[in-house]
Amino acid sequence: MAATNPVITVLCPDDGARPAGLSSLESVAEIRCTTADSLSEDLRGARGLLLWDFFSRAVSEAWGSADQLEWIHVAAAGVDSLLFDELVDSEVVVTNAQGTFDRPIAEFVLAAVFSRAKDFPRSLRFQHQRHWEHRETQKVAGLTALVIGTGAIGREIARLLRAVGVEVFGAGRTARSGDADFGEVIASDQLAEHVGRADVVVNAAPLTPQTTGLIDADVLAVMAPDSHLINIGRGESVDETALVAALDDGPLGFASLDVFEVEPLPQDSPLWGREDVLISAHMSGDVVGWRDALAEQFLDNARRFAAGETLRNVVDKRKGYVPRH
Amino acid sequence: MAATNPVITVLCPDDGARPAGLSSLESVAEIRCTTADSLSEDLRGARGLLLWDFFSRAVSEAWGSADQLEWIHVAAAGVDSLLFDELVDSEVVVTNAQGTFDRPIAEFVLAAVFSRAKDFPRSLRFQHQRHWEHRETQKVAGLTALVIGTGAIGREIARLLRAVGVEVFGAGRTARSGDADFGEVIASDQLAEHVGRADVVVNAAPLTPQTTGLIDADVLAVMAPDSHLINIGRGESVDETALVAALDDGPLGFASLDVFEVEPLPQDSPLWGREDVLISAHMSGDVVGWRDALAEQFLDNARRFAAGETLRNVVDKRKGYVPRH
Repeated sequence: MAATNPVITVLCPDDGARPAGLSSLESVAEIRCTTADSLSEDLRGARGLLLWDFFSRAVSEAWGSADQLEWIHVAAAGVDSLLFDELVDSEVVVTNAQGTFDRPIAEFVLAAVFSRAKDFPRSLRFQHQRHWEHRETQKVAGLTALVIGTGAIGREIARLLRAVGVEVFGAGRTARSGDADFGEVIASDQLAEHVGRADVVVNAAPLTPQTTGLIDADVLAVMAPDSHLINIGRGESVDETALVAALDDGPLGFASLDVFEVEPLPQDSPLWGREDVLISAHMSGDVVGWRDALAEQFLDNARRFAAGETLRNVVDKRKGYVPRH
Repeated sequence: MAATNPVITVLCPDDGARPAGLSSLESVAEIRCTTADSLSEDLRGARGLLLWDFFSRAVSEAWGSADQLEWIHVAAAGVDSLLFDELVDSEVVVTNAQGTFDRPIAEFVLAAVFSRAKDFPRSLRFQHQRHWEHRETQKVAGLTALVIGTGAIGREIARLLRAVGVEVFGAGRTARSGDADFGEVIASDQLAEHVGRADVVVNAAPLTPQTTGLIDADVLAVMAPDSHLINIGRGESVDETALVAALDDGPLGFASLDVFEVEPLPQDSPLWGREDVLISAHMSGDVVGWRDALAEQFLDNARRFAAGETLRNVVDKRKGYVPRH
């Protein structure tokens, strides 16, 4: 009965890139592909909305046209750029891409840990200078890592670090012990009391009011000597000015950064020129095939939506992430 | 009874660096520290010899003075630079540093695998240019690796690769199946028939007549598309001219090299300037504390020698490595 099929609007980036496989929904939904300029118009009458352009902030502007909207799917793990107050207060269900990025991002963290421990950034600089210089490097087994964020991504990072002999503890909303993946979990608001135990600190937290500016000057000042900060969460969780100061005059030895306060990282950022920083272009989870995996995840939820079934990866809009079962 | 204590000569590098803890042997042995120039003189009457200068080739020249020599300990995993014919044919027992380097070298291999998969060398180049460019990277889990060399180092590499989700098979002197660490082991002399199955090929073989030039033009030509060669064994096992050709016109995508045909790598080597090569200065196993670990291993064998006990890590001089039990 095509007449009763729900309208699902797909917000694509301005280059018009669409998710693969949309045509497979033909029999169960009416798909409207649009871009930010036309979103307001194309949202009218839609019951579902896919943010294929996952960092778009166009939804709040078009919100007045969301006259029948029941569901928004975001093709990303972080939903911070979407969650405006009217949406949070509404009945609209938000789902995300939880799961797709867990292993790729955990692998990125291992790449950062091993690359820094084995001094690869310097090897590549020396290579450019045709300079042969033997150095002693760090053993990874026996290092201690603190993973901030006990969601699906943080857990996969913890598991993979443990698999290579790294001791791990976590930081979450509440302190607890006996966690299956972390063992000990400290409370994020007590970071400064515990961060000094860690050789490696990984930020894998979603961006929420509690995690904005979480890694600030006070925390950075008490990190372990020559420690390594890895940020694959959100740039706004780390105070970048304080980070530079901690590299210059504080205990921090190296920072591997995939996310930044402003992206793309501005040309005049002091981070670019530092030999004790690795800069990556917000791509830690984006392995070959990632777009297809994101599309497949949306298609699955779209079929569920059309059939009136329970959706997967429902975000707690007040917390800002998918709660653990 | 000091008079009956054996003389053990310690061949140090020209800078005079000595192993830590030699004084702890005072009660059981007479230690003679020397350098290459004086080795001939200081070898006379010695029953033991430590090659603290582990790549030295001075022993064959001083061999005529080895009038009472029973034992040589080499503070390295590879003994290829020591094994001249007269030594091989003699009764002198050779021991090495097996064990010390296993985990550090396996970690170096993981650093190479993850760093290349996540495109870190390019991220560091882009960083130098203040260039922000999102890319898709490779997932490590699900890759297949072939580890050439089924000794202690090769086994630790296999175990660590498996811990992060890489499929592993091995290459050794003889083909076999059901190996605890490798599962399938192919015969090294049939490399060309099997190498095409591997996304990553790791050379961890000792340098012997069988492994000299093992990875040659024929093998390189049939590697998998965009594959990654990692050499932490010996430079002479890889034909460097053929390697450059395979990167230029063949299937090879990247090479991570810690060892070379000539070391230090000559200034005019074409490898230096390549963006698809990572050059490291023969240091894959040398983590902080490595010299102390090597010294402790020698001291243990020296105490055993003085007490007439069985030595650890005895090399099969004809094979060129410590056979597996």
